[in-house]
Parts: sequence; C-alpha cells; structure tokens
Amino acid sequence: MEHYPSRLLEEAVNELSRLPGIGRRGALRLALHLLKQDAADVNRFGNAIIRLRNNINYCTSCHNISESEVCSICANPRRDNSQICVVQDIRDVMAVENTSQFNGLYHVLGGIISPMDGIGPGQLNIDSLVEKVNSGKISEVIMALSATMEGDTTVFYISKKLRDSGVKISILARGVAIGGELEYADEVTLGRSILNRVPYENVLIK
Amino acid sequence: MEHYPSRLLEEAVNELSRLPGIGRRGALRLALHLLKQDAADVNRFGNAIIRLRNNINYCTSCHNISESEVCSICANPRRDNSQICVVQDIRDVMAVENTSQFNGLYHVLGGIISPMDGIGPGQLNIDSLVEKVNSGKISEVIMALSATMEGDTTVFYISKKLRDSGVKISILARGVAIGGELEYADEVTLGRSILNRVPYENVLIK
Repeated sequence: MEHYPSRLLEEAVNELSRLPGIGRRGALRLALHLLKQDAADVNRFGNAIIRLRNNINYCTSCHNISESEVCSICANPRRDNSQICVVQDIRDVMAVENTSQFNGLYHVLGGIISPMDGIGPGQLNIDSLVEKVNSGKISEVIMALSATMEGDTTVFYISKKLRDSGVKISILARGVAIGGELEYADEVTLGRSILNRVPYENVLIK
Repeated sequence: MEHYPSRLLEEAVNELSRLPGIGRRGALRLALHLLKQDAADVNRFGNAIIRLRNNINYCTSCHNISESEVCSICANPRRDNSQICVVQDIRDVMAVENTSQFNGLYHVLGGIISPMDGIGPGQLNIDSLVEKVNSGKISEVIMALSATMEGDTTVFYISKKLRDSGVKISILARGVAIGGELEYADEVTLGRSILNRVPYENVLIK
C-alpha cells in the first residue's frame, strides 16, 4: 500500500502509524475516517492533542498530571499526607482513585525499571520520593506496582533506597481476583494465595 | 476511569475515543503516549491531521483523493480511458494499483449500498458514473467491490442503471485465494470455484 494519491494523506498516515498499536493499514483507515468527519470536528481533534502536549502541567509534588502547580489530590487538606501510594503512571492513580479505598497521596514514578526497554532507575521519579520520605512526615509507602518482574524489581530497588528512613513499606495484596473463577486463575497466583491464606474472620470484618 | 486529573487530558481522551476501534481506555493510553513524545512531534501530528481534512481535494472525474483538480491517474495519458474500475473507496484504488494488473481509470463510489448502515444509492457517486459511461467513450466497467451481500447489491443496482448504455460490465473473479490451503477455504467459495472451474490451458497462458 504505497501509492498514496496525495501527499497530505501520506503525511497523515505516517503520523497516525506512529501511535502505539496502529500499523499503516489501521492508520489509513483512521485517516479516511477523519476525512469523512466535519472539518470543525477534525480541527477540534487535532487542536485538543496539540493543546494537551503544549499546555499540560505536572504536579511538582507527586508528578501527576495537573492543571495547577500542585495537583488537586496533593492540595486537598482532607487527604492523609502521611501515606504515599507509589504508582507507575497516571492511569494507576485513576485506577486507585476509582476504588475509593485510599485517602492518602500519590507518587507517580513515570515508568518502571525495565532493562529490556532501556529504562533504568535514573529515568524515574525516585529521588524525589526518597527526599519526600526523608522529610519525616511519611509513615507508610504503599507500592502499587504491577505484579511483574519489572514491578518487583522496582519495588526492591525503591525499598533499598528507603531502608534507612525506617518508613513502613507495603505492597498490594496478591491472590485470586474477586469474582474470578478458580479454574482460570494461573498456577502461580493460586499457589501464592494458598500460602498466604487469610483467617476467615479477617475477611468478615472487612 | 472517570477522575481525570486535567481537563486537557479529558478533552484529548474524548477526541481520541471517537476514532473507530478506540475505546476510552485505549484513548487514554494514546494520550499518555503522546504526552511522552517531543512537543514538536506532537504538533506535527496534530497539524498533519488538521491539514489533511482542511486541504484535501477530490478528483472531479473519479472522486479519488487528489492533490489537484484531476488526479494523477485520470490525468495520465498512458492510462486506458476506455476501462473503468469501480471501487468502494480509495483504499481499494491503492490495492488495485499495487497489483500492477490494471491500466485503466477508476471510479470511487465513496461507499457501498448498505441499508443496515443507512447508506443508499443516493449517497454514492453513482450518477457521475452513469454520466461518464453514457458519454460513450467507455468500453468496459469492472466492478471491483467486496464479495459481500452489500457489494453484490451495489453491483446489481449499478448494472441496472448501466443496462441501456450497452457497456460491457464485469466483476472480479471469485474463487480460492492464491497460496491459500484448500482446507481453509469456506464451502461457498470452494463450491463456486468448482462450478466456475477454468480450463487448465487458460491458466498456463497467463
């Protein structure tokens, strides 16, 4: 598919195909879809993306995306500023917020240690976390990272950095998903959730 | 996922999630991807899409996308202007061009008759095709539409419109895909390709 009838189309396909998960065929499909929309809609689409990139701010405290210098979560006096939930990116902030089970603050690493993708600790917001914890107001750091090799490596690296501060470090509970059928749980998860079984009365309290 | 930390992000996600095949989760992923790119790259991305929609032209003769009033295929004196290949959209022009097996001109319908999607013959570029054929210079119309119910309906509708002109109308050969394993061919295709079997010497000539 390389005979584009128009340079404009080819350029748009080139740009769209750089998006993750979108190949040249999908990009052409998207470009033809956009051509069929109202010009005003497509202008709004393009400008929303340009504005997003040019005008976005990050919270100076937790590195979450923010409209102002400090994000609405960090600035909220009703949140418990002694608990910090460490997450990979802002999607995870949104996911934890949606549970309504956490009332502390966040710290967005901006990624996860992944030698395969060339991401080392130096590229993540780890120093500012260590600084924050060493300031002494934090009682607990909850590591809410993926239960993968990369997530575990990152937890291990950060926990070593925080060891001297004496802060309490916890990780998310791992086990069988709620509502999940046991036969579809993978062996490792199922094995771990047997080893880490919980007294039934503990469950009833919650 | 509804607690967006920023209005800019929410707007970008709203726009991205209008693309076909992209839900809100995928849109958020794309928006966060774009945030990590260079500002210059993202501006080029947004502007390529805006320019595409605002500055695109369609060939006045074949309705293909074009840089100029008449597209490069229609304007090419070495193309056979007595043959017209009728296609659904410009992707199909590109697909047929890539085969290098056709040296005539195209006619882009801009869609296919599909009552389920509310698309009737009135929304397609059929009148201009009939006019072109009635002008008398066309010897053959090749219907290169999908081998689906909608494609067949469109072929039938157009062939009725062209009946009085006496032009030769042909459709694409249908049968087992070249390189395809026979066991994976569907029954209907296989059955048709037995009924419409071709003398072996015909194949050898080509």
